[in-house]
Amino acid sequence: MKLEDLVYQIRKKKSFLCVGLDTDLNKIPKQFLQLEDPIFEFNKAIIEATQKFCVAYKPNIAFYEAYGLKGWLSLEKTINYLNENYPEQFTIADAKRGDIGNTSTRYAKAFFEELEFDSITIAPYMGKDSVEPFLEFKDKHTILLALTSNAGSVDFQTKSFEHQELYKEVLSVSKTYDNAERLMYVVGATKAEFLKQIREIVPNSFLLVPGVGAQGGSLEEVCKYGMTDNVGLLVNSSRGIIYASSGTDFAQAAADKAKELQEQMATFLN
Amino acid sequence: MKLEDLVYQIRKKKSFLCVGLDTDLNKIPKQFLQLEDPIFEFNKAIIEATQKFCVAYKPNIAFYEAYGLKGWLSLEKTINYLNENYPEQFTIADAKRGDIGNTSTRYAKAFFEELEFDSITIAPYMGKDSVEPFLEFKDKHTILLALTSNAGSVDFQTKSFEHQELYKEVLSVSKTYDNAERLMYVVGATKAEFLKQIREIVPNSFLLVPGVGAQGGSLEEVCKYGMTDNVGLLVNSSRGIIYASSGTDFAQAAADKAKELQEQMATFLN
Repeated sequence: MKLEDLVYQIRKKKSFLCVGLDTDLNKIPKQFLQLEDPIFEFNKAIIEATQKFCVAYKPNIAFYEAYGLKGWLSLEKTINYLNENYPEQFTIADAKRGDIGNTSTRYAKAFFEELEFDSITIAPYMGKDSVEPFLEFKDKHTILLALTSNAGSVDFQTKSFEHQELYKEVLSVSKTYDNAERLMYVVGATKAEFLKQIREIVPNSFLLVPGVGAQGGSLEEVCKYGMTDNVGLLVNSSRGIIYASSGTDFAQAAADKAKELQEQMATFLN
Repeated sequence: MKLEDLVYQIRKKKSFLCVGLDTDLNKIPKQFLQLEDPIFEFNKAIIEATQKFCVAYKPNIAFYEAYGLKGWLSLEKTINYLNENYPEQFTIADAKRGDIGNTSTRYAKAFFEELEFDSITIAPYMGKDSVEPFLEFKDKHTILLALTSNAGSVDFQTKSFEHQELYKEVLSVSKTYDNAERLMYVVGATKAEFLKQIREIVPNSFLLVPGVGAQGGSLEEVCKYGMTDNVGLLVNSSRGIIYASSGTDFAQAAADKAKELQEQMATFLN
């Protein structure tokens, strides 16, 4: 998907909501467990309930891999369902991959060609030649971990090099990579106060922002410091939407929660 | 597998060789392409040819994911084949995963329980709570990327914080994690001169060392600076062994290459 198509969808739907598909057999309503592919059927119901209110879906790959072959089949069916029925949705493989050149190329093929995702999340630790293979794919987007929302982010990311913290170094250096215009960045909403400084380094890049809601981040702060002329934000909610209810009303509850977030977003888009 | 069992195998076989299974349909001998599962059949042949000379196998997960469901099936058959026929081999899922806590737990289950690998490679960028979920598994080992062998390692890893370089910070900080005795580290052989300083921080940990051979690292240097009383080294070779020949003699060529490396290793073990 081209960036301008994503921006068009955001404007049209007045939403920059991404729904995270962290689908867990222990958490989905019990009636699904009798079906042949409970994960896919649950995802389909969540997609149908929420697609009007969001512009992106983000399957968390770990949740599929944990079920081995069956999990991969559920993932394949989910991305195919999205691409066939809602091609206007931006799809994110939340995979946090990254390896030496020829191996990164393999991961890129797995997620961009085999599964046809629009984007993938990548860990920057191995540097340039681990990221650039993903950037070679036209109309595909690589979302680099910059400042994550978890407690462990203080272990390395916010520590200072001689000149600046590691996450800023990741932003600065990655800007120089080939095809860097295909980069986006993960920036946790729990770190909204950092967004101002982040925008000084990457004024236009799209940011994928987890941590609003459950993890305590503020949508208002994120918009205040992070929004650009092209919006430049995708705000993700996973558990807060898909597990809004564990009863038979789960789909309506998910729709309500997605709609609530969309309506909040609309106020910041005006 | 317990560490002492790995050390026992190293002593017994006089080898600390790890064979990397980066199996690529474009590179394996053509006769395999007519079989139902060429990747698994090739792996099986390589394992049979090399198992006497090595103590570990390392499937590079990207190469399997790139083929989608079929690739995961080949991976599952490969790890099952190893566990059933050669349980004395230490198995490494070269997956370079790492995510927030509940997601890392999922990856740990995928590779330690679903696929029953002995160990997995992990990227440290997200810090403590992204690593510790892997460390909760008894007799399983987590191999943290410290100093990798690729060009991009200079982007961040070898840059200095106020006190020390990032890769040293990764070593120092990760030592404080819960169950840190289950940690190993990736250290590229092309950086052998760094091993002396690395051993000052982690004197006893096992190091997984790629980059000997094809990438130009010296086995002698690696042993000189990196070997401990318990050996503390696994040296990986992938392409150098499994693609030693692309003809019908590929298995013999792989065996010869593995034997050659094993014999070199034996001289450093005496």
